[in-house]
Amino acid sequence: MTVADRPTVPVIPPERYADRLARAASAVEAAGLEAMIIGVGSDLRYLTGYAAMPLERLTALVFVPGREPWIVVPRLERGAAEAGIHTPVAIRTWEETEDPYVLATDGLARRPGRLAVSDGMLALHLLGIQRSLPGDMGYELASTVLRELRMRKDDDEVALLRLAAQAADRVVARIAGGRLVGRTEADVAREVRERLIAEGHDEALFQIVASGPNSASPHHEASDRVIRAGEPIVLDIGGTLGGYASDITRTLWVTGGDAANGPDERFRHLFGVLHAAQAAATQAVRPGVACETIDATARARIESEGFGEAFFHRTGHGIGLDGHEDPYLVAGNGRPLEVGMAFSVEPGIYLVGEYGARIEDIVVCGSDGPIVLNEAPRELLVVDG
Amino acid sequence: MTVADRPTVPVIPPERYADRLARAASAVEAAGLEAMIIGVGSDLRYLTGYAAMPLERLTALVFVPGREPWIVVPRLERGAAEAGIHTPVAIRTWEETEDPYVLATDGLARRPGRLAVSDGMLALHLLGIQRSLPGDMGYELASTVLRELRMRKDDDEVALLRLAAQAADRVVARIAGGRLVGRTEADVAREVRERLIAEGHDEALFQIVASGPNSASPHHEASDRVIRAGEPIVLDIGGTLGGYASDITRTLWVTGGDAANGPDERFRHLFGVLHAAQAAATQAVRPGVACETIDATARARIESEGFGEAFFHRTGHGIGLDGHEDPYLVAGNGRPLEVGMAFSVEPGIYLVGEYGARIEDIVVCGSDGPIVLNEAPRELLVVDG
Repeated sequence: MTVADRPTVPVIPPERYADRLARAASAVEAAGLEAMIIGVGSDLRYLTGYAAMPLERLTALVFVPGREPWIVVPRLERGAAEAGIHTPVAIRTWEETEDPYVLATDGLARRPGRLAVSDGMLALHLLGIQRSLPGDMGYELASTVLRELRMRKDDDEVALLRLAAQAADRVVARIAGGRLVGRTEADVAREVRERLIAEGHDEALFQIVASGPNSASPHHEASDRVIRAGEPIVLDIGGTLGGYASDITRTLWVTGGDAANGPDERFRHLFGVLHAAQAAATQAVRPGVACETIDATARARIESEGFGEAFFHRTGHGIGLDGHEDPYLVAGNGRPLEVGMAFSVEPGIYLVGEYGARIEDIVVCGSDGPIVLNEAPRELLVVDG
Repeated sequence: MTVADRPTVPVIPPERYADRLARAASAVEAAGLEAMIIGVGSDLRYLTGYAAMPLERLTALVFVPGREPWIVVPRLERGAAEAGIHTPVAIRTWEETEDPYVLATDGLARRPGRLAVSDGMLALHLLGIQRSLPGDMGYELASTVLRELRMRKDDDEVALLRLAAQAADRVVARIAGGRLVGRTEADVAREVRERLIAEGHDEALFQIVASGPNSASPHHEASDRVIRAGEPIVLDIGGTLGGYASDITRTLWVTGGDAANGPDERFRHLFGVLHAAQAAATQAVRPGVACETIDATARARIESEGFGEAFFHRTGHGIGLDGHEDPYLVAGNGRPLEVGMAFSVEPGIYLVGEYGARIEDIVVCGSDGPIVLNEAPRELLVVDG
């Protein structure tokens, strides 16, 4: 393969995985856990590089204090596991008619204790593990241990988040510059999906195209509604690139080429308030500031203009290998920001039955302020459509 | 929106969802469960049509005998839920700083009992539910109840599976007819991803491109290995279209345009055995035949030719809204096939370190035999590449 063929997607070096595994093992011991069992998903990928499919056959990485971690995989996935795990981990395979939960809980002390499982483990597997262990075992989430490893992104991770963000930026620009009026939301969503993949995304995971009154529903699913001139569109799209998530929201107003169909005064006002709130929240980002303070910063601006009731979700969520992860920018989260934390800043104002708007960027906490990964213009995008 | 704009993807009518909900409620009662709680995923989509994103905020459909089912959704998803749920269900929303598990377990008898949760519920949510209920509650999988509803596909579901299969067929044809030699597996996988989306898939979920010795690893992840003339490629690809899964495997041999680089005798023999085994297993499909008999049919052919050790996975898995679901064609599953059951038939022969092959079709059990949804040729595809 030539250099020219290879996309410039950073690769996490093997020693990084070895380090993460060692730190996770120490954290399990320090937390006084009997064990930690990690199913398929972002935790497994973070710790080993292995991006297995989340299926009904158990794949699980097991940490038990005092022992080397091992991974249980279906025999037919041995080759995939060997190729996908980027640092040495003992692999133990199970045959199609065996009980894999016995392997995953092998040698665990048969006494009361606490066992952590990955947040994204399927109930199918958690119940299988619970069946294999005494009834007085207590269960908790692995994020209580792993969030401390995963929350602060290293330079390679930031580079991956930036690549994903910039790819999503380009898709927004193409959608905003293309035809919209007369098309259904679902058709635009299909174009978003195609463009995200064409821009190098591994997966296109969501494509909110919320037009007219639908823009007042924050998580609207693109529907058969036909986009008309003289209305807003909230475009909230993302997926993963090199495993890392993109997530951007921009608000458009389509005129159909007739300036008379431009945004009304109320919408312009609403958007101006939102724009200032999003900027203020972003500018408040720096080490030591509490997560809830970023939320409060956006909320204060919006409340002071009388739109408080119309902003009914948190200001942001962490982002990395998961689209939503720690830290959450929400009231009650007093956790101080630290350098390398990455999250969305995405206030919205929704007048249910009428219309709404949202602006979202992915922001990394830098040593002296915010590093904003998305570069697409944040102004109200008034376009012909 | 004009008819020409709309892809001819069947839509499940609302009354079907009402019927499914009623049947699920009856099944919960008949099973003697305290309750059944369904998280985001295929069960929720099957029962209501609602294809919500699997996120950290709880969305859960709750069945309690003697009460109408209700669904718990984050407030910001109320609009999405109202649009996505295709039959009337009471919606109860929770605010960002509330505990949603209290809502999901509201009024559940505080006494020992059995509670079913969807197989795909995240551990995050299952542990939240377990925390909200007495310690002597027993947990089991909702599939024990729901598989009886979901296993037999109705005509609309079969039509959706067929559309997905045919789209995947077209992608296989394009890949097999295109350039392969000199490209990396990962590059071909990227093309598969783009083509699956372009052919109407909602999501492209897996793209196994296993060349040369990698073809002996059934779930090989496409790598930076460069494809060379004179070797096989196992292509196993799929995703979802209209929510329903595609999954096809074909084996290619690339010659680079030089007949001298054609398959060796051993590979031709191996493939011939596999081809006959896959055909025999498919032909064995009819109502009343046990799932394990289909597996045994393929296995007997392969074992009789001395390749038994080289076929180390089950013969197939059910398919529908999930890529893998009941029924499984595996030793020990005595369940008789019934009309409408849909599953893969996919034996493989893998000589680790050398090469391997697999053939996979999606098959529906018809009233008098198999209905094979994939139409792409199953022969060894010897191509220039």
